[in-house]
Amino acid sequence: MIILQDEFYLLQALEEAKKGRGFCSPNPAVGAVAVKNNKIIAKGYHHAAGLAHAEIECMSQFPKNTPGVTLYITLEPCNHFGKTPPCVNAIVEHGIQKVVYGLHDPNQLVRALDSNEILKMHQIETCSILLPEIEAFYQSYVYWTLHNKPWVTAKWAQTLDGKNGIEGDAIHFTNQEAFDFTHQNRYHTDIILSTAQTILNDNAQFNVRLQDKVYPKPLAIIDSQLRLTGQEVCFSQARPVWIFHNHLYQPANPIKNVQYISLDSHPEHGLDLSLVLQCLAQIGFHDIWVEAGAKMMAQLHHQGLVNTSIIYVAPAVFGVNGMSAFQTPLINFENAKSIEWFPMGSNVRAKINW
Amino acid sequence: MIILQDEFYLLQALEEAKKGRGFCSPNPAVGAVAVKNNKIIAKGYHHAAGLAHAEIECMSQFPKNTPGVTLYITLEPCNHFGKTPPCVNAIVEHGIQKVVYGLHDPNQLVRALDSNEILKMHQIETCSILLPEIEAFYQSYVYWTLHNKPWVTAKWAQTLDGKNGIEGDAIHFTNQEAFDFTHQNRYHTDIILSTAQTILNDNAQFNVRLQDKVYPKPLAIIDSQLRLTGQEVCFSQARPVWIFHNHLYQPANPIKNVQYISLDSHPEHGLDLSLVLQCLAQIGFHDIWVEAGAKMMAQLHHQGLVNTSIIYVAPAVFGVNGMSAFQTPLINFENAKSIEWFPMGSNVRAKINW
Repeated sequence: MIILQDEFYLLQALEEAKKGRGFCSPNPAVGAVAVKNNKIIAKGYHHAAGLAHAEIECMSQFPKNTPGVTLYITLEPCNHFGKTPPCVNAIVEHGIQKVVYGLHDPNQLVRALDSNEILKMHQIETCSILLPEIEAFYQSYVYWTLHNKPWVTAKWAQTLDGKNGIEGDAIHFTNQEAFDFTHQNRYHTDIILSTAQTILNDNAQFNVRLQDKVYPKPLAIIDSQLRLTGQEVCFSQARPVWIFHNHLYQPANPIKNVQYISLDSHPEHGLDLSLVLQCLAQIGFHDIWVEAGAKMMAQLHHQGLVNTSIIYVAPAVFGVNGMSAFQTPLINFENAKSIEWFPMGSNVRAKINW
Repeated sequence: MIILQDEFYLLQALEEAKKGRGFCSPNPAVGAVAVKNNKIIAKGYHHAAGLAHAEIECMSQFPKNTPGVTLYITLEPCNHFGKTPPCVNAIVEHGIQKVVYGLHDPNQLVRALDSNEILKMHQIETCSILLPEIEAFYQSYVYWTLHNKPWVTAKWAQTLDGKNGIEGDAIHFTNQEAFDFTHQNRYHTDIILSTAQTILNDNAQFNVRLQDKVYPKPLAIIDSQLRLTGQEVCFSQARPVWIFHNHLYQPANPIKNVQYISLDSHPEHGLDLSLVLQCLAQIGFHDIWVEAGAKMMAQLHHQGLVNTSIIYVAPAVFGVNGMSAFQTPLINFENAKSIEWFPMGSNVRAKINW
């Protein structure tokens, strides 16, 4: 029963962690709950890089040396100085009796020392239980940490005849469930990636609109030839914004609050997309949510840069008026590791892991 | 609790009825169970037109005047002479104590008399409980009875880019679950409807292959210009077979065991599909399962002749090599009454009611 209790409280900590997800990069999102006499006495999560870690926020809610407190944390507490002092020190100082955490932090700085050993040295019992929910939660963080690459989720919507729109017509053909799913994912991602072409076509806001609230998100735009003027609506909605462009073009009238990154460009294939993703990983983004057109999707998939594809299929047929969601090189779904379908009312969603 | 027991036994009767489904036309499939002291003492179903009705098969398994027997039947017992004598008479003669049935038979011959009254006259208690499962089971029978039209289910398979095949290549791109679903539906339908073009393209067997067993099914083929020779594999697998053709063409070498029906033909639109369906209804088929190409699907949908569409979507893209599953006039999914999606492993199935 102890183990079931531990799992329960770890899942409560995970609920806390989810609140910060999408706003913590380059840090991972972390949640913590403090439990005494089988009751949660405090909760906390990491709100954003530079702000208090989850453990600290949680411990600030009860006095030092409160006896019999177990601290449940989704991630191994940090043991190194970053923007904030190490959490293991704070845990020791706060007189915590026991620490239960989910994921071993794969971060080399954390791995250099052993949080368990430090805690044990101070007679703090520790154990770790990696629940599948917590492992899934940290999938992109672990991937980014180990590979220096972001976890890329590419999303598109299409009709039954494989069209993603009608030329010159910003038609909306997916349903409310698809909209909500997109905005949930924008919310939880570290950054949205799109292209100038998509922005010129759709003038998308690229913010998060959930339950009557609007949240800005970081946005990266591939705009090789610097075609965007700054008048596009996304520039008033997203922040911060990066524009990746061909080094042969230079911003004559730089858009306010936009960071420009110039890259070499292949005459035929345009910007090196793997380089764009690498840049974003270096800035500290673990999770990238891509919304773009068929050309970008074809290139990303062809170059093996996509970890997860999300496809909404709506029961509509555009025929010859429609623009194909598939450009050459065609995506080869036989290479997929897994393909799952999720009904969403009259629409359906595919989740493809590569 | 009585009602829950009644429901339970009616569902057992439905399981019996399902065994005969697809083989009883022009009769509806019917199942029956006899219950005494809360135990099923006999089961039966209608195997085929001309053979014993479900009630008779069931009652033949226990002696006349067995006291305390309740007979559960999916459908109101018949009270008229057809190919077999009326079941109400047999029920009276067998000394059944109580009858519980599902659907009131909408058949005018049955409606002309009142089975309940006849049974009550003989001190047999009766009641009917129309469970949703039983109502769904008889959907096509009721529709056919009331409208003199068959319930048409049109099925196609397509890739994510809306292609249903590759020209000149009998490529198979859906999965085992899709295959099984098709064959389950072929099994339970009264007749399969296809076109000469589909048969010439795919040389489909149009039989049922389920769990290493092969079952022949009735097959109707639209072959306006009588292009089929009889060498196609379906002619050795399906039975009986009807061919609908343009009256301007006459079979020079009639294919053995095939019944030809000649119809007037519109110079542009070909055979009148509603007339084809009406003929099949008159022959006695309630349920029609259509497997055909994009042209036939476009026409059937455009003319409002489809009750249910089934679409398998497979995660594949054929690009320019593929043949479109959608021809003009395009299907307008906005007219659908309901659209549901059912994941089937890596494929997904849409069920659309019109």
